[in-house]
Amino acid sequence: MKAIVKIMLKPGVLDPQGKAIEHALGSLGFSGVGEVRQGKLITLQLDDADAEGARTRVREMCEKLLANTVIEDYEIEIVE
Amino acid sequence: MKAIVKIMLKPGVLDPQGKAIEHALGSLGFSGVGEVRQGKLITLQLDDADAEGARTRVREMCEKLLANTVIEDYEIEIVE
Repeated sequence: MKAIVKIMLKPGVLDPQGKAIEHALGSLGFSGVGEVRQGKLITLQLDDADAEGARTRVREMCEKLLANTVIEDYEIEIVE
Repeated sequence: MKAIVKIMLKPGVLDPQGKAIEHALGSLGFSGVGEVRQGKLITLQLDDADAEGARTRVREMCEKLLANTVIEDYEIEIVE
């Protein structure tokens, strides 16, 4: 079983990496690009048999290690 | 219109960040976690009117700036 975790800064939290990309795209001549935000994408191979159990475990991993829940939101997708 | 770009290291390319997460999860007592890989998730607000045009433009942004296509694969999703 595979889990995909998407971690993004919460709305309103300053995102200097996103801003840097935004400016770089402007310098490269791409117009009409509004807000750019950069987050993390983490994929995990799990040996869990059931999807609900896997989701619960990955949620715990997010709370304890993967995400900084003060400033980041996360989203879990279980595939296969 | 909003574009979501997922950028992951190509299979086979060493991913030290992913390995660090894998070990940290093990230390925290999470068992049965196989390979972990970390990538980037970039969201862009675009003022394009049509989805196909937006996709073409974002593909160009990926080739020129967002992804290092020697070692990274990217996937584009256009939403809204």
